Amino acid sequence: MKIVVLKFGGTSVGTTKKIKKIAEIIADYKKKNYKVIVISSAMSGVTNELIKKSCEISDNFSDSEYDVLVSSGEQIACSLIAGRLIHKGYKSRSWLSWQVPITTLGEHKNSRINQINKNNIIKYLRKGGIPIITGFQGVNNENRITTIGRGGSDASAIMVAKFFKADRCIIYTDVEGVYTTDPNKLKYAKKIKVISYEEMLEMASLGAKVMQPVSIQDARLNRIDIEVKSSFIKKSGTLITKRTNIINNKIITGISSTQNDSKVSLIGVKDKPGVAASIFKPLSKNSINVDMVVQNISANGKETDLTFTIKTEDLNKTKKIIQENKNISYRKLIFERGVSKISIIGVGMITTPGVTFRMFQTLANKKINIQVISTSEIKISVLIDKKSTKKAIIALHKEFKLDKKNEHKTF
Amino acid sequence: MKIVVLKFGGTSVGTTKKIKKIAEIIADYKKKNYKVIVISSAMSGVTNELIKKSCEISDNFSDSEYDVLVSSGEQIACSLIAGRLIHKGYKSRSWLSWQVPITTLGEHKNSRINQINKNNIIKYLRKGGIPIITGFQGVNNENRITTIGRGGSDASAIMVAKFFKADRCIIYTDVEGVYTTDPNKLKYAKKIKVISYEEMLEMASLGAKVMQPVSIQDARLNRIDIEVKSSFIKKSGTLITKRTNIINNKIITGISSTQNDSKVSLIGVKDKPGVAASIFKPLSKNSINVDMVVQNISANGKETDLTFTIKTEDLNKTKKIIQENKNISYRKLIFERGVSKISIIGVGMITTPGVTFRMFQTLANKKINIQVISTSEIKISVLIDKKSTKKAIIALHKEFKLDKKNEHKTF
Repeated sequence: MKIVVLKFGGTSVGTTKKIKKIAEIIADYKKKNYKVIVISSAMSGVTNELIKKSCEISDNFSDSEYDVLVSSGEQIACSLIAGRLIHKGYKSRSWLSWQVPITTLGEHKNSRINQINKNNIIKYLRKGGIPIITGFQGVNNENRITTIGRGGSDASAIMVAKFFKADRCIIYTDVEGVYTTDPNKLKYAKKIKVISYEEMLEMASLGAKVMQPVSIQDARLNRIDIEVKSSFIKKSGTLITKRTNIINNKIITGISSTQNDSKVSLIGVKDKPGVAASIFKPLSKNSINVDMVVQNISANGKETDLTFTIKTEDLNKTKKIIQENKNISYRKLIFERGVSKISIIGVGMITTPGVTFRMFQTLANKKINIQVISTSEIKISVLIDKKSTKKAIIALHKEFKLDKKNEHKTF
Repeated sequence: MKIVVLKFGGTSVGTTKKIKKIAEIIADYKKKNYKVIVISSAMSGVTNELIKKSCEISDNFSDSEYDVLVSSGEQIACSLIAGRLIHKGYKSRSWLSWQVPITTLGEHKNSRINQINKNNIIKYLRKGGIPIITGFQGVNNENRITTIGRGGSDASAIMVAKFFKADRCIIYTDVEGVYTTDPNKLKYAKKIKVISYEEMLEMASLGAKVMQPVSIQDARLNRIDIEVKSSFIKKSGTLITKRTNIINNKIITGISSTQNDSKVSLIGVKDKPGVAASIFKPLSKNSINVDMVVQNISANGKETDLTFTIKTEDLNKTKKIIQENKNISYRKLIFERGVSKISIIGVGMITTPGVTFRMFQTLANKKINIQVISTSEIKISVLIDKKSTKKAIIALHKEFKLDKKNEHKTF
């Protein structure tokens, strides 16, 4: 069976008009003789409306009833999609998670899919039906509805693709795919045709909010090809696949940048075990998200300089926590607002020497000062002055030839 | 086990504020050591909103998906009620129809409850839990959600009361109970404390839209005491029970009246088999609801006069249908707008002679002309001029002493 899993996000099914449109997309795959399995999120806005009601009922609304409440959102969307396909003459029906069933483990509001019973769906596919399965939910061993904590409907789609050994999992959303850099910041950013899981993970965690990182990781572990594309524009999207599937002449796949960051430096911190923990523990406790952390090797073996970045909105809170913490000793504390983190990402850099040099040289040519550097296997991040962000992205985009196209087979 | 079934209608759970209020009502029964089973409708407005969406998707929306769609309304209401009870420190949870399970027979949108598995709920009640069960729905033998065609959540409540042998089934709604006559028409109408199933059936079909007639009939067949009361005002309501439970000195329990009726008389119709059918068949086909029908015995054995009432809004359509129908032969056709049907209802009239006479005399004293008379075992209906409606109700209300109170044991 040539199976394709189509997942539609909240904005893709946000109105009945949009549902009619996505029914066309589903029908197109059916016409191409695919066995189509659809996973849907709730119509955008519905889940928030339900959560609002739960807050009115209790400031500590029961987790198990929360799951019953919000899972109705996907139920509504799936019945409308199936209803539209039936209207168009197709054999289709909604499959609620307890009807499949999709069983979960873990606690309410935060469960994960453990098992998907394939029998009913396979039988239904064989009869030519198009099953529309509720995303974001399952039933636990007590036969109660649970919702998936991380990844939501994306995670459902990946797991369905895994259990049914689908040829591809297509994530329909409100963007056309993943871009070489934020198209809102750089108008000639290019859509990436193909990207590896690892690069996508780096892109996602850096702000390319196309897919939940946890779902990309699931896809990576199960070697499931994902295509991210738009529900609204008929164009191929971005294929997320394993590295070896990519015939890619590019060293760098994408450039990401953060905004509204601030830099905190502690100069002359005592260089002994546990010092970093004593600084970051109180920040974590206060829900302050620390991003880049750089600690230099101490020159004299006794003292070190520690630098990290946080969101600027957390700056005052961070200041207060550090200054009031008697356990942290340092000689000098420096804060700097308005820094920006620029990252270049690409599996190509593993096999290509000199990428770091090229990045630094490009920035130097533009007289952009690099304040902090942090690297991983497939990513190089630098901290620069916020004012130079756009200039840096333009220069790097050109240097690494991201305006050139690469291709992949589209469904 | 002393079990009480509480059913809340759409307006009773119409807002989260109202849900908080009905959680108090539920808690009160729990404090009185009842085992409480709650049945809830969808929040008012929710079902209509969902139906509207289905109409946008298709002008012929699939029945099976319709059931999936609208059943989410009760799911939402039940989770919010359970969530509120949990917030208040009670053990409670929603039970969706497939979790109980409540199994149904018949087609989608029009199924009926066949079986209720008691085991899970009994176990849960024994542990001190308050189950909140979705009304209006069940699952069929294909494990698909179905909705109950007639009676809706009322029917669910009656069936749950039957299967669990509940002491009483309390229908919470937006009225205080059943009145001796429409309180909007007569300000000193009295709430009826106790009424028989049979009387209630006559009242209901005559416009006292407190409960669905089909559910009253179910309750009657299963001998389940029903109390209809308000969710918003803490007062005893109306008890609907079997005749033998009523120690009632009244002959008449209530007076009902219709509005906007018109009278159609066919004079000199050929008196032969099938003549009535040939008149009413085309009316029925055109969805015209015929109410009172009176046919006099023909004097000469050849001709008869036929009179019936319809809603005034259907008058023009009715005229056209009769005049254009070549199969109906009559000498004269008379239409009269602005008639009103007044009915007195009471099981007491079975054992009390002269009720008909008293009714006619009362109207005659007020110089109200009776145009048509129709009687059943526990009801006498007359057709009068619409202008005299209020005068007639006041006179009959007084004549049959409906302003006097009767009592029943309230929970």
